[in-house]
Amino acid sequence: MLARTEHDLIGDMELPNTVWYGIQTQRALDNFSISGIPIGHFPELITSLAMVKQAAASANQQLGLLPQHKAEAIIAACKDIQSGQYNQDFVVDAIQGGAGTSTNMNANEVIANIALTKMGRIKGDYQFLHPNDDVNRCQSTNDVYPTAASLAIQFAGDALILAVASLTQSLDNKAQEFNHVIKMGRTQLQDAVPMSLGQEFKAFATVLGKERARLQEAGKLLCEINLGGTAIGTGINSHKDYPNLAIAHLVAISNKPLFQASDLIAATSDMGAFVYYSGILKRLAVKLSKISNDLRLLSSGPRTGLAEISLPAVQPGSSIMPGKVNPVIPEAVNQTAYQVIASDLAVTLAAEAGQLQLNAMEPLIIYNLLNSIKMLTSACKMLDERCIRGIQANEQRCRDNVDNSIGVVTALVPVLGYSNASAVARQALAENKTISEVVLARNLLSQQQLDNLLNPTSMMGIA
Amino acid sequence: MLARTEHDLIGDMELPNTVWYGIQTQRALDNFSISGIPIGHFPELITSLAMVKQAAASANQQLGLLPQHKAEAIIAACKDIQSGQYNQDFVVDAIQGGAGTSTNMNANEVIANIALTKMGRIKGDYQFLHPNDDVNRCQSTNDVYPTAASLAIQFAGDALILAVASLTQSLDNKAQEFNHVIKMGRTQLQDAVPMSLGQEFKAFATVLGKERARLQEAGKLLCEINLGGTAIGTGINSHKDYPNLAIAHLVAISNKPLFQASDLIAATSDMGAFVYYSGILKRLAVKLSKISNDLRLLSSGPRTGLAEISLPAVQPGSSIMPGKVNPVIPEAVNQTAYQVIASDLAVTLAAEAGQLQLNAMEPLIIYNLLNSIKMLTSACKMLDERCIRGIQANEQRCRDNVDNSIGVVTALVPVLGYSNASAVARQALAENKTISEVVLARNLLSQQQLDNLLNPTSMMGIA
Amino acid sequence: MLARTEHDLIGDMELPNTVWYGIQTQRALDNFSISGIPIGHFPELITSLAMVKQAAASANQQLGLLPQHKAEAIIAACKDIQSGQYNQDFVVDAIQGGAGTSTNMNANEVIANIALTKMGRIKGDYQFLHPNDDVNRCQSTNDVYPTAASLAIQFAGDALILAVASLTQSLDNKAQEFNHVIKMGRTQLQDAVPMSLGQEFKAFATVLGKERARLQEAGKLLCEINLGGTAIGTGINSHKDYPNLAIAHLVAISNKPLFQASDLIAATSDMGAFVYYSGILKRLAVKLSKISNDLRLLSSGPRTGLAEISLPAVQPGSSIMPGKVNPVIPEAVNQTAYQVIASDLAVTLAAEAGQLQLNAMEPLIIYNLLNSIKMLTSACKMLDERCIRGIQANEQRCRDNVDNSIGVVTALVPVLGYSNASAVARQALAENKTISEVVLARNLLSQQQLDNLLNPTSMMGIA
Amino acid sequence: MLARTEHDLIGDMELPNTVWYGIQTQRALDNFSISGIPIGHFPELITSLAMVKQAAASANQQLGLLPQHKAEAIIAACKDIQSGQYNQDFVVDAIQGGAGTSTNMNANEVIANIALTKMGRIKGDYQFLHPNDDVNRCQSTNDVYPTAASLAIQFAGDALILAVASLTQSLDNKAQEFNHVIKMGRTQLQDAVPMSLGQEFKAFATVLGKERARLQEAGKLLCEINLGGTAIGTGINSHKDYPNLAIAHLVAISNKPLFQASDLIAATSDMGAFVYYSGILKRLAVKLSKISNDLRLLSSGPRTGLAEISLPAVQPGSSIMPGKVNPVIPEAVNQTAYQVIASDLAVTLAAEAGQLQLNAMEPLIIYNLLNSIKMLTSACKMLDERCIRGIQANEQRCRDNVDNSIGVVTALVPVLGYSNASAVARQALAENKTISEVVLARNLLSQQQLDNLLNPTSMMGIA
Repeated sequence: MLARTEHDLIGDMELPNTVWYGIQTQRALDNFSISGIPIGHFPELITSLAMVKQAAASANQQLGLLPQHKAEAIIAACKDIQSGQYNQDFVVDAIQGGAGTSTNMNANEVIANIALTKMGRIKGDYQFLHPNDDVNRCQSTNDVYPTAASLAIQFAGDALILAVASLTQSLDNKAQEFNHVIKMGRTQLQDAVPMSLGQEFKAFATVLGKERARLQEAGKLLCEINLGGTAIGTGINSHKDYPNLAIAHLVAISNKPLFQASDLIAATSDMGAFVYYSGILKRLAVKLSKISNDLRLLSSGPRTGLAEISLPAVQPGSSIMPGKVNPVIPEAVNQTAYQVIASDLAVTLAAEAGQLQLNAMEPLIIYNLLNSIKMLTSACKMLDERCIRGIQANEQRCRDNVDNSIGVVTALVPVLGYSNASAVARQALAENKTISEVVLARNLLSQQQLDNLLNPTSMMGIA
Repeated sequence: MLARTEHDLIGDMELPNTVWYGIQTQRALDNFSISGIPIGHFPELITSLAMVKQAAASANQQLGLLPQHKAEAIIAACKDIQSGQYNQDFVVDAIQGGAGTSTNMNANEVIANIALTKMGRIKGDYQFLHPNDDVNRCQSTNDVYPTAASLAIQFAGDALILAVASLTQSLDNKAQEFNHVIKMGRTQLQDAVPMSLGQEFKAFATVLGKERARLQEAGKLLCEINLGGTAIGTGINSHKDYPNLAIAHLVAISNKPLFQASDLIAATSDMGAFVYYSGILKRLAVKLSKISNDLRLLSSGPRTGLAEISLPAVQPGSSIMPGKVNPVIPEAVNQTAYQVIASDLAVTLAAEAGQLQLNAMEPLIIYNLLNSIKMLTSACKMLDERCIRGIQANEQRCRDNVDNSIGVVTALVPVLGYSNASAVARQALAENKTISEVVLARNLLSQQQLDNLLNPTSMMGIA
Repeated sequence: MLARTEHDLIGDMELPNTVWYGIQTQRALDNFSISGIPIGHFPELITSLAMVKQAAASANQQLGLLPQHKAEAIIAACKDIQSGQYNQDFVVDAIQGGAGTSTNMNANEVIANIALTKMGRIKGDYQFLHPNDDVNRCQSTNDVYPTAASLAIQFAGDALILAVASLTQSLDNKAQEFNHVIKMGRTQLQDAVPMSLGQEFKAFATVLGKERARLQEAGKLLCEINLGGTAIGTGINSHKDYPNLAIAHLVAISNKPLFQASDLIAATSDMGAFVYYSGILKRLAVKLSKISNDLRLLSSGPRTGLAEISLPAVQPGSSIMPGKVNPVIPEAVNQTAYQVIASDLAVTLAAEAGQLQLNAMEPLIIYNLLNSIKMLTSACKMLDERCIRGIQANEQRCRDNVDNSIGVVTALVPVLGYSNASAVARQALAENKTISEVVLARNLLSQQQLDNLLNPTSMMGIA
Repeated sequence: MLARTEHDLIGDMELPNTVWYGIQTQRALDNFSISGIPIGHFPELITSLAMVKQAAASANQQLGLLPQHKAEAIIAACKDIQSGQYNQDFVVDAIQGGAGTSTNMNANEVIANIALTKMGRIKGDYQFLHPNDDVNRCQSTNDVYPTAASLAIQFAGDALILAVASLTQSLDNKAQEFNHVIKMGRTQLQDAVPMSLGQEFKAFATVLGKERARLQEAGKLLCEINLGGTAIGTGINSHKDYPNLAIAHLVAISNKPLFQASDLIAATSDMGAFVYYSGILKRLAVKLSKISNDLRLLSSGPRTGLAEISLPAVQPGSSIMPGKVNPVIPEAVNQTAYQVIASDLAVTLAAEAGQLQLNAMEPLIIYNLLNSIKMLTSACKMLDERCIRGIQANEQRCRDNVDNSIGVVTALVPVLGYSNASAVARQALAENKTISEVVLARNLLSQQQLDNLLNPTSMMGIA
């Protein structure tokens, strides 16, 4: 295999000629193999890096800091990367030391080498176009990396918003379908008062329906970027007009309403927007987990559980128990939720570990955010398509529960008072009777009064 | 001690006549002694409960569901409680089973007994005014408790917002005071490029300054309440006009823009707003911890650390090392932050554990939120008054650091290029020289060029 | 109120003559009001501090570093404190900066003042007996504080071990009582294969029974103490024979097999044993929570849930729903468990924040550990006495579930094969028949074969 | 591409003939794509599954439950898998619903198809050897899966123990090398008293040296397995002699001292040993993070930090700041630690979510444990080989710090008393003098007395 030699502060190194990255990427590869997951695993991050580099090149060209032929080659290379064809050349481990420098250099080197070949030069011949002096011109990892990450999270978040919306719609559809199914509501797992299965599914939809606004707002916080701040936010080595120009280009390329932070020094080390985003993902995870728990409870059975609904069977449930069908989809959603909650902790720990003008743990933060978004998106789609849409109600079971319930005594309190109603409930339970039987036996109310008070739709707050 | 006998579903019980609470509160006292912290530890919660009960009584009176003399007695009792004089009668443990029923009954019973005495009756004579049938009229724990908690968190949050604002102002004042102090910025704990100490403190102020908007928005989410939903959100046993009336009264009493949730069933079990609020508190904690870490780093010394600033001495630092003064205030802030981060986990775990139409773990959620707000408020005040305001800059030390630094070589990159500048840096470090010395010795730049490029204010992005 | 003036590094301060503590305690009181919980809330910690101080005084007397009259006065004061009568004089906030210095000085000052009065002197007249020079002789907060905490945790842990043992015994008793009750086992909330209710409770007992060994071993790790290491583990200002003597006295006083760490520098900053102990508490919490979840599931109903067991009614369940009895005790255990899990995170965060020769966040670690032990002890007792002992089995319901179950088809697999058995299960479910009915209708087995294969005790692995 | 048709409870499905897995694996692939990480990513898990299946086949053959030709084919297939050549055929997502059923079926199907081809049959021709009836004979996912996981964690843990040991040895070597380097110890980031750099590194070694025993003990808890318990621990469908035989074979194959749990029902749902193991990993992570934090602090500089040590330069530190070398290796270790701490939370959440006779979240627990072990092993190796071994001491800097320090005043306390010593310290700091200068100027001690008291080795506790 043909090889080329590259050089950096540490010394020389041979690289196979096939690779698009350069010496600093190779050093990072040698140094870090923690997660086993290369940054190319997150296409949104690669696309975003290439967008930032493209915007920077355009600005630098305008300012006369980069000659036209170099700028054009860099821009062309960035566009190729945005098309996805170089994702596998972004090889550094997602968990890396150096506050993202290896990721930034991976981008600088890949772009430089693509651009060099476009210019008719060979890979590694950096005298004609340099990863640092040209591709990274007016930039630092410390502004490029968080900017690209903010963009990547927004792109990934867009897909998540769609997945949540579709799931919410499916729950809403089920709410309509089940609206007529009367069942017992339960509080603290104890029989409470009647409701409809439609109301129960509508509540799922309502709860998830609130997440779109949260995710969008979290995205808005990520629009405040520190591009142009370079090393620590003072903008050292950046042209005074560069930030505005570069950000204007980036807005045009990304179609996201990015704007420059008013305090670039604060913005360089502050992980607040990432922590916020992670908190929103955690909230979504908590909601998905609660819904999954409910689906598993409601479908428990088939004979000895609540059995009010049936989930679609998507795979055999057991290697030993024939015919068993398990709620595997909600179970996988639960586990996704736990992982996202755990990732939020990783983000928190990393954010707290920032020191002075930078947070060296940014790679962990970005990895966990992108991973959580990816997992939640998959989980929402899975829950939507492989579970919710196929749920069936067991109407008779639901109705029988209401008829046998003690909880309906609640509806008699305004007439009987709390103490009398308590006595009725206690007797019904002890003697295995219905509430109506006890009330009539005690001559507390007439049959007609009972029928009025225990009318399910009025108890359900619908009438 | 004189005693009275009360009765409930479980049986009879003797209570000392001195206590304002009743049998259900006493049962809860007997059942739960987990945290050792009574709900009366959180005055905002007691005030809020009394406000909700007052609003309910007013609505019930208007609707003819409560005779005037009862309503007036209840309202008067609620006002007395809001004045704070009965806080010590709210005795049930903050961590309790029953989804808040014991807290609600503690309120119902204390109110009933105060009202009874106002009516000229004796405590416990519930035939004249009943904790459930009258005080709790049209209500359930499941709507009263989260409503009161949402209100309490907002009240407590108002104090936190003020404390954060004052702390931010103090940081801003220091930023002004230190604006002329030139120092080295640091990334990854390594010397980076120059900045001013004022910029560093301004960044602290900027970062905290963003929290007001977050806290206010989190408060807004808590304005959506489920009052009127009663047991599971279907509004069973509540008059159809009750919710609007009760909420209107509550808005007037509390001066908070509360409004009814559109989906009361969802709102009854959904802990989303609490999880959100907790996430915001966690974000604030992360920021406070990062700032405290920085203050401890910057004040490390006095002789062998960074020693760029001095914190005010607020207590002797050591029982064995004389003259030692430690950064005890930031250390206490760090610990507060860790506790708040941990509390966010407790909130998360409890929120995830909701089942079907209710979350039985609400008491833990509310306890942790109120406790976190209380601790953060104290921590902000402490940091503000006992630390930030008294910080002094060690100007000479800061300036010397810049003069000796290698990092200023960065400012030469646009002229020398990245590779040449790297070589200069390496040589300066190896030979224990300044950057200027090496550049001049190598004849790379003239003294005048150097002076221009290494002008601190231009490097700091201020000029 | 009479007052005295005390002096320290920071300046003079007036103290009311009634208080036993001195100026440094008062400064800590002024500085820290975070948790609102004074260290006196944890009697084991106060007792342990007094034991350490007593052991130190005895050692110092033997070494001639403390005259007899001073040593005797200190020892007498320490014994009084161990009796519990001065707990309310330990006033500094449990969450404090200064790595425990305020707690140590609170002890030094209270002991000095008690000793002074025993010597016929007045409080604050430290020329006759000094908090630092005498009470703290050969000591530093940095060895005294973790040593006392290690002891306190062991004392508190002893009570927890007893509470867990009693709870385990009660579960075991129930296992015996329910041994004959046949029921369906469930996996993934779906009907699986038969078991006995006794087996289910026995599993609870087995799982908890393993915790004693874990807690004891965690206690053992805390026996390795750094007493004698003073400030950073180098033993500065301590007599070379002091450590052995002091520890020997402490072993005698405390009756715990303490021994000196081989590497005192490591031992001074290492929080490993605390992190370990916290992990064990978390494991116990996870187990208690899982058991509580199961109890709530198994007792769900009374009419529309699993209803296989009934929990004792310990308080009315609802302010609106008469007759409702909720699983309030397990709910409180769940919440305790969540709080303990969260506290483990606080311990983890604080432990990770140690720097160089000390961990300044020790107070938070110790607070959370003592609080978790206290809460778990209460929760175990509560669960034992107010829930487990009163649980009743609903035998008929359990038996009916087995008779109706599809899951028993599993027992036919060795004869029918997995595929055939699956078909039988599917048909039974679809046609609302029992497994036996389908097998007989299909002529797959004779009645006698069926009776043999579906014999419950053989399916339960008991026969 | 040629295809075959397979059938299960859900229906028919076409599979490409190239794949070794079958229909149930394919369904799992279709259902779950959460983490994107196939179980084959963890070779120890695949090896362990194959070992369990081999042991089961041997036992079944002995018991006459499996004819020799089938048993031999299965055993041969299992051995091939243990050699690693089929890892890429274990394709189901590590995060999956179904409590591991898909993982178990992936194993059953791959083994069956390999065995079939060894028998001269074609893939999918299960009439000759069936994934469930033959490969899974006497087994259930619910005993096979946790057993294989317990084994896999032990195998992976062995590698971690070695990596920790090597890292500890390197730290110990450095402790020897740096033993003569005198420096200031620091508590709370403030100058404390003298020590040697060797003592500091020895403390790192001591702290990590304790982890071997913890990891080994955690491994021991995993030796208690539930093999033979089948579905819920009652051993349904398993021959009475099967468990002993199967476990004996597994012990022989794996060379691990596995033994059967005394209470198989408890053992089937109890995640206690996994929670324990995770807690131990978390403890190791906390220690590694603390050490990494210290390394970053001690190497801060090069000019404006503590600069007591220099870490080896493994890659250029900055894309913009030439010559900057960052502590990238410790930073990566910190991030690994945070991820492991977060994973411990995922394990905790999943363990708490177990219900009744099974924990459906086992896949998440196992994924996180294996991933954490893998990451920690890499991190320890990286820290050892790319950082610790190349660390150099900056002796002069260390020595200068001692000479300038205020903290040495501590050594004078036994002679001057705490109050006098405090005054000396205050004056030295205020007047920018050394302690010796102030003491001599005040005539408190003679030069000779000072020399004796301030002798570094005696202050260091070494003399």
